[in-house]
Amino acid sequence: MPEKIYSYQQLFNFTTQVFQHMGCPATQAELAAEVLISADLRGIDSHGVARLSGYVRLWEAKRVNAKPNIRIIHETPSTAVVDGDSGLGLVVAPFAMQVAIEKAKKAGTGWVSVQNSNHFGIAGYHAMMALEYDMIGMAMTNASPLVAPTFSTERLLGTNPICVTIPAGEEPAFVADLATTTAANGKLEILQRKNLEAPQGWIQDKDGHASTNAHELKTGGALLPLGGDREHGSHKGYALGAVVDIFSAVLSGANYGPWVPPFPAYVPMPTGMPGKGIGHFFGAMRVDAFRPADEFKQHMDNWIRRFRSAKTVEGEEKVLIPGDPEREMEAIRMQEGIPLLDAVVNDLSTVGEKFGLSL
Amino acid sequence: MPEKIYSYQQLFNFTTQVFQHMGCPATQAELAAEVLISADLRGIDSHGVARLSGYVRLWEAKRVNAKPNIRIIHETPSTAVVDGDSGLGLVVAPFAMQVAIEKAKKAGTGWVSVQNSNHFGIAGYHAMMALEYDMIGMAMTNASPLVAPTFSTERLLGTNPICVTIPAGEEPAFVADLATTTAANGKLEILQRKNLEAPQGWIQDKDGHASTNAHELKTGGALLPLGGDREHGSHKGYALGAVVDIFSAVLSGANYGPWVPPFPAYVPMPTGMPGKGIGHFFGAMRVDAFRPADEFKQHMDNWIRRFRSAKTVEGEEKVLIPGDPEREMEAIRMQEGIPLLDAVVNDLSTVGEKFGLSL
Repeated sequence: MPEKIYSYQQLFNFTTQVFQHMGCPATQAELAAEVLISADLRGIDSHGVARLSGYVRLWEAKRVNAKPNIRIIHETPSTAVVDGDSGLGLVVAPFAMQVAIEKAKKAGTGWVSVQNSNHFGIAGYHAMMALEYDMIGMAMTNASPLVAPTFSTERLLGTNPICVTIPAGEEPAFVADLATTTAANGKLEILQRKNLEAPQGWIQDKDGHASTNAHELKTGGALLPLGGDREHGSHKGYALGAVVDIFSAVLSGANYGPWVPPFPAYVPMPTGMPGKGIGHFFGAMRVDAFRPADEFKQHMDNWIRRFRSAKTVEGEEKVLIPGDPEREMEAIRMQEGIPLLDAVVNDLSTVGEKFGLSL
Repeated sequence: MPEKIYSYQQLFNFTTQVFQHMGCPATQAELAAEVLISADLRGIDSHGVARLSGYVRLWEAKRVNAKPNIRIIHETPSTAVVDGDSGLGLVVAPFAMQVAIEKAKKAGTGWVSVQNSNHFGIAGYHAMMALEYDMIGMAMTNASPLVAPTFSTERLLGTNPICVTIPAGEEPAFVADLATTTAANGKLEILQRKNLEAPQGWIQDKDGHASTNAHELKTGGALLPLGGDREHGSHKGYALGAVVDIFSAVLSGANYGPWVPPFPAYVPMPTGMPGKGIGHFFGAMRVDAFRPADEFKQHMDNWIRRFRSAKTVEGEEKVLIPGDPEREMEAIRMQEGIPLLDAVVNDLSTVGEKFGLSL
C-alpha cells in the first residue's frame, strides 16, 4: 500500500498544534502528542496518529474536554481514584500513573483507578513511566465493546489491554503489552484494508460461529478473547479482559462492559450508562520494596539472557523477550522516520485543514 | 474409569493425619489438608489428594520442612517478602496471603512475594481468603518448567497460574483461576490416561512442532502458552507466564524459569539454581480503598448479571462468570462426596501404609 515517511519531529509538531487548536494547554498538547506518537514509533500504528482525527471528532462531539480539571477524588496510602474530567486519556493517564509512582515512593506500591477518561493511546507508554524510578509499572484500560465472552453472541468487552513493565540492569526492560484478545483490532483492520481472510480463532460471526471473514464486525460479529474458543482457553482470555474491565471501571466508577462509550464519535452513546467515561487502572511497585534494586536487576538480566538464548524451533532466530520487537522498531523509526499510509496522510490533512495547519 | 466416592470429612481426616505423621503441627496439618482438598471439592482433581503422595515423597527427599519457621524478611507499608523455610506451600501460602490482607487493612493494598516455598495447591484457595474482608485477592505461583515460550524448544516456564477474586453483593464472587497455558497439565494427564489425542495448540514435540500426541512431554515436548502459536497469540500467554515467574521469584529471591525445583521428587534438582525453593506472589486490595464497598458490590452485581444474561451461541445455556463451574462443583461434592479414580485410591492407600493409616 502506498505510504509516505515522516520524521518524529514533523508528526510531533503537527499533532501538538492540533491539540492546541482544540484548546489544550501547551504542555498538555505536547504530552498528548508524545503519548500518541509513541504508538507509531513502537510499530503499533493502529493507536498512533491514525487515530488523531478520531480524537478531534470526539472533541467536536463535546465528549472530550480540552481543559480538564484532573484530580484525585479518593485515596489511601497506596491507592487513589482519579477523575479525568472527560479529558484526553492521553493526558489523564500519565497524571494517574504519576500518582501511582508517588504513592509507591512512600508506601512501596501505588494503585490508581481512573473514571471519566477517554482512550489513552498505548498502555506501554504509561507503564514504562515507572522504569526510570526502578519500579515495576502496570497499565490497563477498558475500551469500546468489540469482544464476545465465551459462549456469548453479544459484544460485552473491549480489547482491554494489560501492560507490565519490569526494569532490568544491563539488559533492556521487560515490556509486555497485550490486548486480551487473540488479535488486536488493529491487526484485523490491516486484513480488512488488504481484503485478506483472518485466521481461525480471531473472530466470530453474529451468531457466534467461527469465521475467517475479516469484515465480520461490521455485521454484528465479534473479536474473540485470547484462546479463541473454549477448547483453546478462550474462557481465560475472557476472564483476563473481565479483570481489566472491573479494575478499570467498577473500582473507579467509570462505565464497564457494554456501556463503555464508543471511540467513533458517530456511534450513539449506550443507554443506561452506570458510570462516567471510560476507565483505566495503573500500578507501580518499587522493586526495592521487595529486595535491593541492584540484586533484583542482576537477576532480571540473568532471566532475560537465559530466555533469549533458549534453543529455538528451526527457522526462528531467537526467543524474544516481551518488548524486544517494539524497542527495535522505535530505534529504527526514530532514525529513519515513520511511514504513514496514504489514507492516514489524507486523514491528517483533513484534520489540518480544520485548523489551518499543514502536515 | 472405575472410581470410589469419599466424603470431604473422610479425605480431610486422612490427609490431616498424613501431614501430622510427617511432623506437621496439628493446626498446620489441618490447614494443609483443607487447602489440598479444596482442589478436589472445586473439581480441579489434578491438584488435590492425587498429589498427596507427591508431597510425601518431597518430604522423604528432605525437600519439604514439616516444621518451618515461616517469616517476613523484608517489608514496607504495602509490601513484604516472606521466607517459607522450605515448608509446604499449602501452609506458607495462607500465611503470606494473610500478611497481604493485614497490609491492605492499613495501607489500602498489600503485596507479598514468597521465596523458599513448595507447591501451594490451587491459587484460588489463597486468593479467595481476601473475599471475607471485602478485598480483591490475587495469587500466583511459578512451577516446574513444562512450558516452551514462543519459538523455544526448551521448557522454561511452569503452567504459572493467576487467580483474581473479586467480591460481589448478592451474586457470588468473581473467581478467575487460570493457568497461563492453553490447557492445564491436569487436562493433558486425563487424555494420557484415556489414551486420547490432544487438540491442536496444546502441546509441541521436542523440536517445537505442533503435536496432538498427549504423551509428548515424556519425550522432550512441551505445553504451549495460552494462544498456542504466534498467530493465535502465544506470545501473550508466554508474557503472562513470564510475569508470574518474575513477580513470584525474581522479586522474592526464589528460583525462576528453568531452575524451578521439579515437583516429582525423583527428578534431580537443576544445577546452578539462582534462588531458594519455588516462589509465589499474593495481593489484596480493599475495595473501599477505591470507593464505598456497598457501591462497588452493587456495580459488581450489575456487571455479573449483565454478562450472565448475555445472548448465547446456539446450544449453550448461558454465559459463565469466572468461578461459576467450580462453585457449583463444590456444592455438589460437599453434599454427594468426592469421586476418586482407583489409581488415586491405591496411591493414597500406599501413603497410608507408610504411617499405619487407612483411608
